[in-house]
Amino acid sequence: KTIAVLPGDGIGPEVTDAAVKVLQSIAMRYGHTFHLKHAVIGGAAVDQFDNPLPQQTIDVCDASDAILLGAVGGTKWDNNPAHLRPEKGLLNIRKHFDLFANIRPVKAIPALLASSPLKEEVAKDVDMVIVRELTSGLYFGEPKRRSEKSAVDTLVYTREEIERIVNQAFEIARTRRGKVTSVDKANVLETSKLWREVVEERKAAYPDIEVEHMLVDSAAMKLITNPRTFDVVVTENMFGDILSDEASVITGSLGMLPSASIRSDGFGLYEPVHGSAPDIAGQNKANPSAAILSVAMMLKHSFGLHTEAAAVEQAVMSVLEDGYCTGDLAGSGKRVVSTEQYVTKVIEELE
Amino acid sequence: KTIAVLPGDGIGPEVTDAAVKVLQSIAMRYGHTFHLKHAVIGGAAVDQFDNPLPQQTIDVCDASDAILLGAVGGTKWDNNPAHLRPEKGLLNIRKHFDLFANIRPVKAIPALLASSPLKEEVAKDVDMVIVRELTSGLYFGEPKRRSEKSAVDTLVYTREEIERIVNQAFEIARTRRGKVTSVDKANVLETSKLWREVVEERKAAYPDIEVEHMLVDSAAMKLITNPRTFDVVVTENMFGDILSDEASVITGSLGMLPSASIRSDGFGLYEPVHGSAPDIAGQNKANPSAAILSVAMMLKHSFGLHTEAAAVEQAVMSVLEDGYCTGDLAGSGKRVVSTEQYVTKVIEELE
Ligand SMILES: CC(C)[C@H](C(=O)O)[C@@H](O)C(=O)O
Ligand SMILES: CC(C)[C@H](C(=O)O)[C@@H](O)C(=O)O
Repeated sequence: KTIAVLPGDGIGPEVTDAAVKVLQSIAMRYGHTFHLKHAVIGGAAVDQFDNPLPQQTIDVCDASDAILLGAVGGTKWDNNPAHLRPEKGLLNIRKHFDLFANIRPVKAIPALLASSPLKEEVAKDVDMVIVRELTSGLYFGEPKRRSEKSAVDTLVYTREEIERIVNQAFEIARTRRGKVTSVDKANVLETSKLWREVVEERKAAYPDIEVEHMLVDSAAMKLITNPRTFDVVVTENMFGDILSDEASVITGSLGMLPSASIRSDGFGLYEPVHGSAPDIAGQNKANPSAAILSVAMMLKHSFGLHTEAAAVEQAVMSVLEDGYCTGDLAGSGKRVVSTEQYVTKVIEELE
Repeated sequence: KTIAVLPGDGIGPEVTDAAVKVLQSIAMRYGHTFHLKHAVIGGAAVDQFDNPLPQQTIDVCDASDAILLGAVGGTKWDNNPAHLRPEKGLLNIRKHFDLFANIRPVKAIPALLASSPLKEEVAKDVDMVIVRELTSGLYFGEPKRRSEKSAVDTLVYTREEIERIVNQAFEIARTRRGKVTSVDKANVLETSKLWREVVEERKAAYPDIEVEHMLVDSAAMKLITNPRTFDVVVTENMFGDILSDEASVITGSLGMLPSASIRSDGFGLYEPVHGSAPDIAGQNKANPSAAILSVAMMLKHSFGLHTEAAAVEQAVMSVLEDGYCTGDLAGSGKRVVSTEQYVTKVIEELE
């Protein structure tokens, strides 16, 4: 298998290195060969090629079976024009490879409940997956324009775009507790009415799945008051951006959360949910768990290597249970270690 | 002063009655005369006039100095066509009276910290105001349309629309801790770039105010992880809908939260943040605090009666501190009382 490795900016390179070490340990232990091809994206690519997603990088990804990405962005590029901003690299790669399904699992980790802003009895046993549409909606709809006196963005969805993401959510629910919560704003938006109709239609093909519709404002509350009631949450791009970041706080640290952005044939991009954290970049402090768990998602979704994926997840959980953590999770009874020490611990657990 | 009273649906009439009783007690005690004119809105108006905001109701509001609204909506009308849905009454009244500034204070109540899903040390001392643009954006932008195969909503903002809501936020910040957090998605949306520009421009007129820009996904996290860092949050309509409901969970109950929707001349509509809760309607169980505190906001914003407003707020807090509450806030050490008993307690405190 060939994997494109795009470290990106800030802590991106550190956490990607960590994830690659774990991948190599898995390769050795289970007898796989992973070919790694590095390429630039984001600010690093702007600096080198004046393009946050250069053609070279696209070529490398085209010749790969999956993409591992670190993080993009940094204050250095904040005042660049839109087409030279790091985030544009991320938006472009999603669109170019038609990675329409963004999958973000949010699972409470017993060893970290004390770090959650939620009461332990609220955060305990939370186990949900947010399935966010990633290549349409307000992010890409046309017209999108600016004049001196006003600005316009367009929220547009086609039936097909909704169908494929909703199908994805139903399929994931089948491998879990069998419940889908579809989030929309059907009392205000035309796109949400279409969304709700499509969910109702697709439901017929999944009689085993329980379906509920929830308004986005209500979902924003229930994610915090009753997070355990969610299994699979499916929603459009902008709502998904907001709700998945909101849900991420449940676990106590963004540093724990992996994500997959996939298309129908299994090809996918795997990246931590966290950003590039320029303030702690290069200090051997970053929490590499999200990148490592993104590798686990890659092993599972793109390569079908379920045993290997489970081993990676288990190794991370064991290290946390032993009380080791990076600075973001410091607390009583915890032993704070560096990024490198943490990875070493994870690899020891794997062996 | 003349007040239009629009009880609406579900628990709307009960909580409005409660608020009116408190208003009458204030009138007696402080020697004011309030003329109350009742009118229908929402589902009740659909049933009576086939219109969620009938002309009669507009006329009553036109002849008033402020509007007190209960809540609208209910499953009974859920399958109605859009123009005959209760929420349409709410959207129409906001637009008709140009109530562009929706103001939602979120303040942690010491007596209720145990009801919050957040850890007490996180929720403690939270005191913020969310200022949401209410008459533009995705809610009202054209084109808004549906075909068999796709749907479109339009997010449009003019410079003037942004300026007036941003000014409002700056003015409110001046009466508080002097900090404004402007929330947008400037890394993706053209409307957000314009929004951010306007905030930067208006900042010059308010050198005493500290301004920070925050992306909406990040704000959705920080509202839960660091809610005390917010003073005044200003944002566009859709983001405001989501974030204000999210923030509402901090206090432990939606039943506590009032709101004001005002225009520049001081005219305003005051309503609880909660919905019509049809499941408990007519059972003398609803928490009338949000409606009562909405009256306090009316006294302050529309009538400039600051002493009276403070007295109402103080009375509600005293009742809660004495351990009395409605069922939504039941818990150890609490004495659950009916809506009517609760109002009686509040009025006793006022006297
Ligand atoms: C960087 C930004 C454009 C991106 C998004 O909004 O999609 C990020 O917030 C994410 O969720 O991956
Ligand atoms: C009922 C609905 C249309 C309304 C809105 O979205 O504005 C409500 O959620 C609110 O926040 O007042």
